[in-house]
Formats: sequence, C-alpha cells, structure tokens
Amino acid sequence: MAQKTEAQVTIGGKTYTLSGYESEEYILKVADYLNKKIDELTADSEYTKLPADMRQILLNLNIADDYFKMMARNEELSALIDKKDNDLYDIKHDLVAAQMKLGKAGRSGKSD
Amino acid sequence: MAQKTEAQVTIGGKTYTLSGYESEEYILKVADYLNKKIDELTADSEYTKLPADMRQILLNLNIADDYFKMMARNEELSALIDKKDNDLYDIKHDLVAAQMKLGKAGRSGKSD
Repeated sequence: MAQKTEAQVTIGGKTYTLSGYESEEYILKVADYLNKKIDELTADSEYTKLPADMRQILLNLNIADDYFKMMARNEELSALIDKKDNDLYDIKHDLVAAQMKLGKAGRSGKSD
Repeated sequence: MAQKTEAQVTIGGKTYTLSGYESEEYILKVADYLNKKIDELTADSEYTKLPADMRQILLNLNIADDYFKMMARNEELSALIDKKDNDLYDIKHDLVAAQMKLGKAGRSGKSD
C-alpha cells in the first residue's frame, strides 16, 4: 500500500499541512495552480470587493471551469482517435486487397 | 459580442446570482458538479469536523485534482493520437509500395 505523505503548502497566503497518498511534488504542483488561480482573480478589483463566500464560490467555479474545458478537450481527442481508428481500418483493408491482388498477379505471372 | 447571462445557482446550500458569458445551462452543470464534490466530502465525518478554511482548501484541491487527472488523461490521448498517426503513415507507405508493385506487375503481365 502506498505510504501517506505529509506536505506543507501555502495557498492564498495561509500555510496548511496536508496529508494524502499523492506525492509531495504533486501536492505542491496542485497548490501552485490554485495560487495562480487566486492571483488571477484577486488582480480584478471587483473580485476583492466581494464577500468571502462569494469569492470562494467564484474560485471554485473557476477551477471547475478549467476541469470542464479539459473534459471537452478530452471528448474532442477521443473523437479524433475514433476517426483515426476508422481511417486505419479502411487503409488496412485497402492494403490487404492490394496484397491479395499482388499474390494473384505473382502466381499468374509464373512461367511454370 | 456574447450577451451576459444571469443564473441563480445553489452551491453548498446557499443561493448565488452569477453573471457571465457562459450559458445558464453550463453554469448549472458546473454548479451541479460542485455540489456533488461537496456532498462527497461532507459524507466523510472527518471533513465536517475541520475548520471552514481547511474545508474550502480541501474542496479546491479536490476539484483541482479532477482537473489534473483530466489533463494527464489528455496527455495519454495525445500520445495515442501520435502513435496512430505513425501507424497510419507506415501503413500508407506499405499501401503505396504494394500499389506500385501491382502497377508494375500489371504492365509486365500485359500481352502487347
């Protein structure tokens, strides 16, 4: 079983000790991403004037929006894979047909 | 320019009026996802005992974790697309080679 990791992270200026089964490197990467999102939002003076719970909700929605955009990209990539699988299927079919014709041509072209 | 939408959403039991350029349908979908994440976390009695800021940080990390997992999955899919492109390139090459041989065989097999 994976060992539990403890990591100290600073998010939004506060330091937390987190424990989990992810690597410390991963936890720090996620914390870094969260800090960037917080910085982006707090750069907007309208955001900083909002009550704390509204700021939290907007932060949550913002991260979730990144997730949904990534999911949409995932669907596009999956569709592209399906298309390439179809192309591969068709071209393999053409190749087999060409190879069979070639086999026939080879046999009929033999002198004996 | 896209028109601004106003949507009423209930997240974590509180109702907020959000405005943005996303469709109301999209805002509701994201809110629904957030509520599911909150429900998942609050099902754990340890979580509910934590101070509010720690609960918020864990919620943020949880959503960000979904985002990073989806990003990792996208990288896998992109690598798979590259592999399929290479396969397609190779098999197209084989097909062209077979078709050229077939053309040659056809010409040499002709009686005139």
